[in-house]
Amino acid sequence: MADSLTSGYTVADYLMDRLVEIGVDRVFGVPGDFTLGLLDHVTAHRGLTWTGCANELNAGYAADGYGRMRGMAALCTTFGVGELSAINALAGSYAEHVPVIEIVGAPATSAQAAHRILHHSLGDGVFTHFMDLHADVTCARASLTAADAEAEIDRVLLTARDRRLPGYLLLPVDVAGAPATPPAGALPPPQDATDPTALDAFTRAAARLLQDVPNRDISVLGGVLVHRTGGSAAFAGLITAGGLDHATTLWGKSLFDESDPTYRGIYAGAASDPAVRGVIEDAGALVVAGVQFTDLTSGFFSQHLPRARTVELGAGSASVGDELFEPVTLPAALRALTALIAARGEAGADPTPEVAQPVPAADDRAQVLGQRSLWDQVAGFVRPGDIVVADQGTAFYGMATHRLPTGVTFLGQPLWASIGYSVPAVLGACLAGPGRRGVLLVGDGAAQMTLTELATVLRHGLPAVVIVVDNDGYTIERAIHGPDEPYNDIARLDWAALPATFGPDADARGVRVDTVGELADALADATAHPGRFTLIQAVVPRDDIPPLLDTLARAAAGANRVPG
Amino acid sequence: MADSLTSGYTVADYLMDRLVEIGVDRVFGVPGDFTLGLLDHVTAHRGLTWTGCANELNAGYAADGYGRMRGMAALCTTFGVGELSAINALAGSYAEHVPVIEIVGAPATSAQAAHRILHHSLGDGVFTHFMDLHADVTCARASLTAADAEAEIDRVLLTARDRRLPGYLLLPVDVAGAPATPPAGALPPPQDATDPTALDAFTRAAARLLQDVPNRDISVLGGVLVHRTGGSAAFAGLITAGGLDHATTLWGKSLFDESDPTYRGIYAGAASDPAVRGVIEDAGALVVAGVQFTDLTSGFFSQHLPRARTVELGAGSASVGDELFEPVTLPAALRALTALIAARGEAGADPTPEVAQPVPAADDRAQVLGQRSLWDQVAGFVRPGDIVVADQGTAFYGMATHRLPTGVTFLGQPLWASIGYSVPAVLGACLAGPGRRGVLLVGDGAAQMTLTELATVLRHGLPAVVIVVDNDGYTIERAIHGPDEPYNDIARLDWAALPATFGPDADARGVRVDTVGELADALADATAHPGRFTLIQAVVPRDDIPPLLDTLARAAAGANRVPG
Repeated sequence: MADSLTSGYTVADYLMDRLVEIGVDRVFGVPGDFTLGLLDHVTAHRGLTWTGCANELNAGYAADGYGRMRGMAALCTTFGVGELSAINALAGSYAEHVPVIEIVGAPATSAQAAHRILHHSLGDGVFTHFMDLHADVTCARASLTAADAEAEIDRVLLTARDRRLPGYLLLPVDVAGAPATPPAGALPPPQDATDPTALDAFTRAAARLLQDVPNRDISVLGGVLVHRTGGSAAFAGLITAGGLDHATTLWGKSLFDESDPTYRGIYAGAASDPAVRGVIEDAGALVVAGVQFTDLTSGFFSQHLPRARTVELGAGSASVGDELFEPVTLPAALRALTALIAARGEAGADPTPEVAQPVPAADDRAQVLGQRSLWDQVAGFVRPGDIVVADQGTAFYGMATHRLPTGVTFLGQPLWASIGYSVPAVLGACLAGPGRRGVLLVGDGAAQMTLTELATVLRHGLPAVVIVVDNDGYTIERAIHGPDEPYNDIARLDWAALPATFGPDADARGVRVDTVGELADALADATAHPGRFTLIQAVVPRDDIPPLLDTLARAAAGANRVPG
Repeated sequence: MADSLTSGYTVADYLMDRLVEIGVDRVFGVPGDFTLGLLDHVTAHRGLTWTGCANELNAGYAADGYGRMRGMAALCTTFGVGELSAINALAGSYAEHVPVIEIVGAPATSAQAAHRILHHSLGDGVFTHFMDLHADVTCARASLTAADAEAEIDRVLLTARDRRLPGYLLLPVDVAGAPATPPAGALPPPQDATDPTALDAFTRAAARLLQDVPNRDISVLGGVLVHRTGGSAAFAGLITAGGLDHATTLWGKSLFDESDPTYRGIYAGAASDPAVRGVIEDAGALVVAGVQFTDLTSGFFSQHLPRARTVELGAGSASVGDELFEPVTLPAALRALTALIAARGEAGADPTPEVAQPVPAADDRAQVLGQRSLWDQVAGFVRPGDIVVADQGTAFYGMATHRLPTGVTFLGQPLWASIGYSVPAVLGACLAGPGRRGVLLVGDGAAQMTLTELATVLRHGLPAVVIVVDNDGYTIERAIHGPDEPYNDIARLDWAALPATFGPDADARGVRVDTVGELADALADATAHPGRFTLIQAVVPRDDIPPLLDTLARAAAGANRVPG
């Protein structure tokens, strides 16, 4: 129950109580005069903390990062200017299945009814424009009134939770302060929509497919929807039960323990490492769980799965070869497969040969840093339990192919691919996972989009380690088109000076490295000072790109090529 | 004609030629893989320059600042992520009547038709979401095809130009490169929609109203639409013809020469200086030109105009008392009034007593800086021809009440009021007005929204002077609600270090000032180094606010107050 500011319980209190109930302990945003009264109810609530961000887009990205860790997030912005600044982040949450509740503080009902020409409006006396504009990027919306606020809050929150997509609440200042009735009971828990008959039929069909295939010839490919449907534990259970060879897509990276010997790497169609490609495409039987292939995660749709030998699990349906079974949820199907496999009591695949992380030889120390040596060293620096957030450029593709230690969460945005996402996302993810270290990997072109949020990271004293890949502009774009064009240049910053400028009072270090040895020293120093924020400006050649990105960029250039 | 990249003339070339024709010589934006081919046609065009910004919201604000100076602007972003990041800026352009053409580079027509799951999309194979989402903030939109591109480009550009509102063009990569026919002729020039009969009737009615009122008792109130309808010269003509006392709204500030003795100040209803209020509300006859009252420009709708004695000019109609005449455009009506007044050959109002700009006395130098001493000194620092951009907080309200020298352009955003706007806007405005000095006035809370764009200002070597009001958070919000609440705090930055961090190679100085004397020295130093970029971190007490803002904040708090 909320610590109400007055003796009266209000709509704002009701909303905060319900947010806590669905798993939120923090609200991200930027204040505005239409939200200030509402924010009093955030700061006064025992179960909630307010996190102010530098701007609303960043707040939206931070909420998304938090939501990926917690399964639910809340964002609060002001009317018009605030919500429109954040809408790209919300669209990214929609595209990548992250339920973020956007709460927009709006002008008083009476001012709206009188069609007042208010600031933050288009000046036409109409106050429905911006909620309408959210229709395509939220799964439920409500313009709250004092009469229906409780029911409408419940409807939007439950829809967002159950569909794993953003929801939108427009909350006029007077409605936020209107009297409300505290929840009479808990919200209904999520229901597993699986039909037992369909599940039974699926299980029998899967058993037939798998019966003649030994565990060592069964492979598993995991994607993001395993995580979003709450199936991660069931996925781990299946792998473990059979010692099954498995891979993930780029969008499913870190779904299961990448240090496990059954993990083979990233499958990305023709852009895959040939060994991984063989494990997936030539499997005796293949289980594909929660995979949605996109251009950048499939090598531009070059995936080639053995349909007749494949069991495919979607969020709400499952198929065996060409037979479809529904409604069967992904976790239920995974558990059914696990039971089948466990009952066989067979040995699994031969363990992958252990690959030692490369360590720079003493005589390599003077070597100029490049994308390969950079990501090899950073991969060796990551420790169990870290939260690694990689921006959608050389950082993402450079790191994605490296095997991560146990318990590492890897966050990226391979479908929405909004550069700059990672900087605020690491803030949100670290606040969602206290005690875990954030490792942010971002190129200079992406970092300049959102870098001010590092001030918030410093303000919160988060001991994140930030690698800024300083390659003098948009290298991912150069790889696709216009390697020497001025539009791929950006301003040159003194990146190493950022920590002192943005957090003059923080325990922080900024350092520029140009060689393999300097990077090794800077990483060792970060390890030796676990409570400190470190920013490493890693200078690499302008046109050096990781191999996976090279493959994808060629495909992207082909896809964009103007015919004739 | 474009320098086409190949022998063939393309849709992209056609678009660039038409942009130049309607007055654009620069395109702002951020590159993306769906725009890279298109950008080749920008950089190759003799009449166009590309300006890359730190992020798309900033690019949108920069285009808006440019558009306010030039009457037309162009913005180019990539699909989805780029356009949604910029949409708040575009909405501001819509609200404040600035025609910005947004060009969105989109996936190839064939990929759209195949419903491919592409990056920067929502992953549902639908590519119309984001154009639809722009419906409420643009006056014309087109999804270009090779078959209709020329006609659709002309339609959107002409509609934007004539309605003075943003337009939207979705340009798939293949359509950009498709063959096109160069323009057969020039675009039709803007038409003055005035009906001569209506104008004549208006002129006779105005003559009757004014006939018994001497020039010294006629006052004029000017607003933003005078500028937007191209009526600024006609407005100046009317004032000059009669020596008429006049004021502007906050949204019309700097419409005419504020150093002219007939300029009386800012009219903002009950929030006005009493002398200005008297000049407007007690006038023998009042001409109101291009004024749209909003909450923040009217003291929350406390304007009180003498309707029966008022001639009011809107964008397309004019009224005298209760009589309406249309279609009569604002410039036409102003010219008609000027002819009436000029024909009388009367003397005008007594000149306003000249007010010397306050100069700090020698013994004030040690005094701690406050809002009053800050803006008094900055007003004395502004020189003729400067472009002054003030963010919508203490900077705007502190400066708005000061009289500006001849030829100064004052830019702010009093309706849309999106804080952070000013930093990129000064970039766009300075690039639109080469040789004119930019003076940026911005609070710390607003500056942190968009401060990275200072790196672009430094990269272009623009000798702007930036005053960052360091008052430890969102002071304008504190004035409205929650003076001591944590949500009004922001990260503490070392603002004075920003120029060195963001432009290590630039001729730039950053300095922190705490006293009247330190500010005087810093301003004198900026004046002494006219080619240098200067950032002044002006530390003022947290809760000190300018008088006009105090009045408005009390009204805003009242408007937002929760009843009961």
